[in-house]
Amino acid sequence: MAVKVDLNCDLGESFGAYQIGNDQEILNYVTSANIACGFHAGDPSVMRKTVKFALAKNVAIGAHPGLPDLAGFGRRNMVISSDEAYDMVLYQLGALNAFVQAEGGRLNHVKPHGALYNMAAKDPVLATAIAKAIAKFDGELYLYGLAGSELIKAGERAGLRVRHEVFADRTYQEDGTLTPRSMANALITDAGDAIAQVVRMIKQGEVHTIQGQSISIQADTVCIHGDGEHALQFAQHIGNVLQKEGIHITSST
Amino acid sequence: MAVKVDLNCDLGESFGAYQIGNDQEILNYVTSANIACGFHAGDPSVMRKTVKFALAKNVAIGAHPGLPDLAGFGRRNMVISSDEAYDMVLYQLGALNAFVQAEGGRLNHVKPHGALYNMAAKDPVLATAIAKAIAKFDGELYLYGLAGSELIKAGERAGLRVRHEVFADRTYQEDGTLTPRSMANALITDAGDAIAQVVRMIKQGEVHTIQGQSISIQADTVCIHGDGEHALQFAQHIGNVLQKEGIHITSST
Amino acid sequence: MAVKVDLNCDLGESFGAYQIGNDQEILNYVTSANIACGFHAGDPSVMRKTVKFALAKNVAIGAHPGLPDLAGFGRRNMVISSDEAYDMVLYQLGALNAFVQAEGGRLNHVKPHGALYNMAAKDPVLATAIAKAIAKFDGELYLYGLAGSELIKAGERAGLRVRHEVFADRTYQEDGTLTPRSMANALITDAGDAIAQVVRMIKQGEVHTIQGQSISIQADTVCIHGDGEHALQFAQHIGNVLQKEGIHITSST
Amino acid sequence: MAVKVDLNCDLGESFGAYQIGNDQEILNYVTSANIACGFHAGDPSVMRKTVKFALAKNVAIGAHPGLPDLAGFGRRNMVISSDEAYDMVLYQLGALNAFVQAEGGRLNHVKPHGALYNMAAKDPVLATAIAKAIAKFDGELYLYGLAGSELIKAGERAGLRVRHEVFADRTYQEDGTLTPRSMANALITDAGDAIAQVVRMIKQGEVHTIQGQSISIQADTVCIHGDGEHALQFAQHIGNVLQKEGIHITSST
Repeated sequence: MAVKVDLNCDLGESFGAYQIGNDQEILNYVTSANIACGFHAGDPSVMRKTVKFALAKNVAIGAHPGLPDLAGFGRRNMVISSDEAYDMVLYQLGALNAFVQAEGGRLNHVKPHGALYNMAAKDPVLATAIAKAIAKFDGELYLYGLAGSELIKAGERAGLRVRHEVFADRTYQEDGTLTPRSMANALITDAGDAIAQVVRMIKQGEVHTIQGQSISIQADTVCIHGDGEHALQFAQHIGNVLQKEGIHITSST
Repeated sequence: MAVKVDLNCDLGESFGAYQIGNDQEILNYVTSANIACGFHAGDPSVMRKTVKFALAKNVAIGAHPGLPDLAGFGRRNMVISSDEAYDMVLYQLGALNAFVQAEGGRLNHVKPHGALYNMAAKDPVLATAIAKAIAKFDGELYLYGLAGSELIKAGERAGLRVRHEVFADRTYQEDGTLTPRSMANALITDAGDAIAQVVRMIKQGEVHTIQGQSISIQADTVCIHGDGEHALQFAQHIGNVLQKEGIHITSST
Repeated sequence: MAVKVDLNCDLGESFGAYQIGNDQEILNYVTSANIACGFHAGDPSVMRKTVKFALAKNVAIGAHPGLPDLAGFGRRNMVISSDEAYDMVLYQLGALNAFVQAEGGRLNHVKPHGALYNMAAKDPVLATAIAKAIAKFDGELYLYGLAGSELIKAGERAGLRVRHEVFADRTYQEDGTLTPRSMANALITDAGDAIAQVVRMIKQGEVHTIQGQSISIQADTVCIHGDGEHALQFAQHIGNVLQKEGIHITSST
Repeated sequence: MAVKVDLNCDLGESFGAYQIGNDQEILNYVTSANIACGFHAGDPSVMRKTVKFALAKNVAIGAHPGLPDLAGFGRRNMVISSDEAYDMVLYQLGALNAFVQAEGGRLNHVKPHGALYNMAAKDPVLATAIAKAIAKFDGELYLYGLAGSELIKAGERAGLRVRHEVFADRTYQEDGTLTPRSMANALITDAGDAIAQVVRMIKQGEVHTIQGQSISIQADTVCIHGDGEHALQFAQHIGNVLQKEGIHITSST
């Protein structure tokens, strides 16, 4: 069986007069686009345009629902009930899907954003609510979540197809979670090291942890950043290396 | 052919801790529910609950998209582009439809709210954008708009089935528009007069205008208020009178 | 020295078309009004009107800043930085003070709302940021916080005059915190018991805890609810009892 | 009497993760900073930082209140009542002033933003409400408005000191209003022409209109853009030319 992986990127994060990211350029290098749905970022017009860009580049479209916190870009943890989580995810799925449907496309996946993603990785109740919203909306959708996390497990319990997500530029703890950004060694700053970590995760199903040992990890999709000075360069670079390594880059279809 | 009419009401206008309306009670008297979609009123949790209430009462569900103006309850005119109108209507349709779909229902119609409704009644460009959003999303949806207005015309041009809406408690101008609320004689305060106006519109296809003459008007659906002290009482009353008059009360299906 | 106490109430929590509370009536029974500042509740027009009502009744006016979460009414904990806390409190103080100043009044105090109040009661870093914002804005302002809490301590460190707040209808833990609402015995539902608890706290400086023993507590101001069916009745009742007990009801001046 | 002029710029328009403008750089070239107040742009943290930057550069600080329309950047006309205008301006003045006061500065002026500025230039009722809010808050504040507009007149009626604002890169109509951006010849794209127009307005008190004749205009302050590719370059350039022309660049103090 050929080794393959998906490269996904968060897109459509501009809002009104505010621009973030190089959406059209990064679409040349990824196979899945997670499009913001207007809660933590994005607005209806940005959503329409981003959906069109993704369809034009034949990139799989996912909803990227977040917390209702534009001022905090959805990165501040909020204590929400499981009903609230279910409702806000379902709302955002529907909103984004309207644009996908209107443009003749098909929604492929869902990846929660920021604090919602991180909270759901650890909290099985929240994760279950999110998975339930997705399954109720469309049982064919893929759920992208942190590899091995509670969100992935909840997706499986809900009967969804899941995609374990890994990160190139983040270090891992021995329990498989990401080292928090507040810690000194959270980031892998050398591009070569970052890509080597990804190749190892894909080919050997393992990652070196900050504590020194190797642990098993499943790498179905790699998170690629679309913003920042070197984002495009890195996206192109990792794509080239993966291809040389014989890894087929393809979306989750 | 039997004479028939639809009774519609705006619902789901609560927001967070804020309650408006007697949604569950008014559903006993109407055949169409226009559910707010989170821009001018409503939130994801309110939307879910309201959809469930409407389905339980077998009332036809419509989206009730509005301007992004919670502080003004969507009643303040805003100068928006036709692209913005298209995008904000499509976004809201999708969001509400997610709840309808998740609960096993089917979206029946769309009725714009407040300032968006009023602006679209007069502005063919805005009306066209709204109708296009609806048609792109689902060509089977009904469009409810002010009887004889530009919104109705735009809906017909877009190939949508339209429903001409009339008001019991509002007076009409000789051009078929409603007398603005800022004018002294805008409202019909006597319940009997209001109902008589509706019966005349349905049976004779005519309404007396403020200027004295009668004009033609098509009455497919009557707007019923769900809020206010006497709302439930009036809703029950008009229903009784219409039935006595041999008018069949049914949604637009 | 005469025994005295302040009765405070959260006011100005309406928003746009949404009404909450009986602001004008409850002002007859309290000596301090905590007015929402537009983040978790309230809007500029509501703020102006509520300030006018409070001035007309000669009730001391306080700012009631909250988290930027209208949908959650400021009751959902959010992980905010101390800079964010400082900034959002300072912003809201200034906004409310503009109305107080324009109406010829003087701002008396600050009481954080909901989740911000609860988080600051336990988190000295957050509490310090809030106290600093108040002290920077106007060192003469009183800070109202949970009796004995970190917020009170931070206020004292910042050189502010503080007021220990107690609750009539909530039970206490042995560490002086309120029993969380999620627990069965969090609320005192009998009005007589609630008022007896308050009298005891004011006169003996003690409260019975849920664990059985009595602990010391300072009762400078009592939180009175302005919303709910029996709010006005209870406010009148507690005022009558306190007066009979010889406790002088007066604001923190 | 020495000829003098103020150069003002809109600042603090970033929001959360969204960055707009080169605030620190443009402050080297202007004498008045109009700081967004959180309605159309800006947030509490951005406000604090921008106030600090302006104080460090000794630039006069003004409030730049706008419509509650972050998605439209305050550029979409909204039909608001005069009470709403009064309230939203007063709220924003207070909020910004809190940061100015906390940092030891003094608020110098108020310039409404975008659609609020344009509507108030033409609508005496709206203009009066805005002027009243400013006068109620602090009668020493300057009001910056379109030269010769209704807003300037309302400011004078309210007893405020006013500053007539002119634009370098916009063409004028024979009634003294700006040519709407929707028209082809609205903008002066040549930097030399733009600066020559400003010099002429300051020195001769005249401007050539699009219709061909010259009209009187008072130029107290010139609007300088802080965003866009050539903003800094143009700001520096116009400053140099004005100084060569013997025009003293100073804020309205």
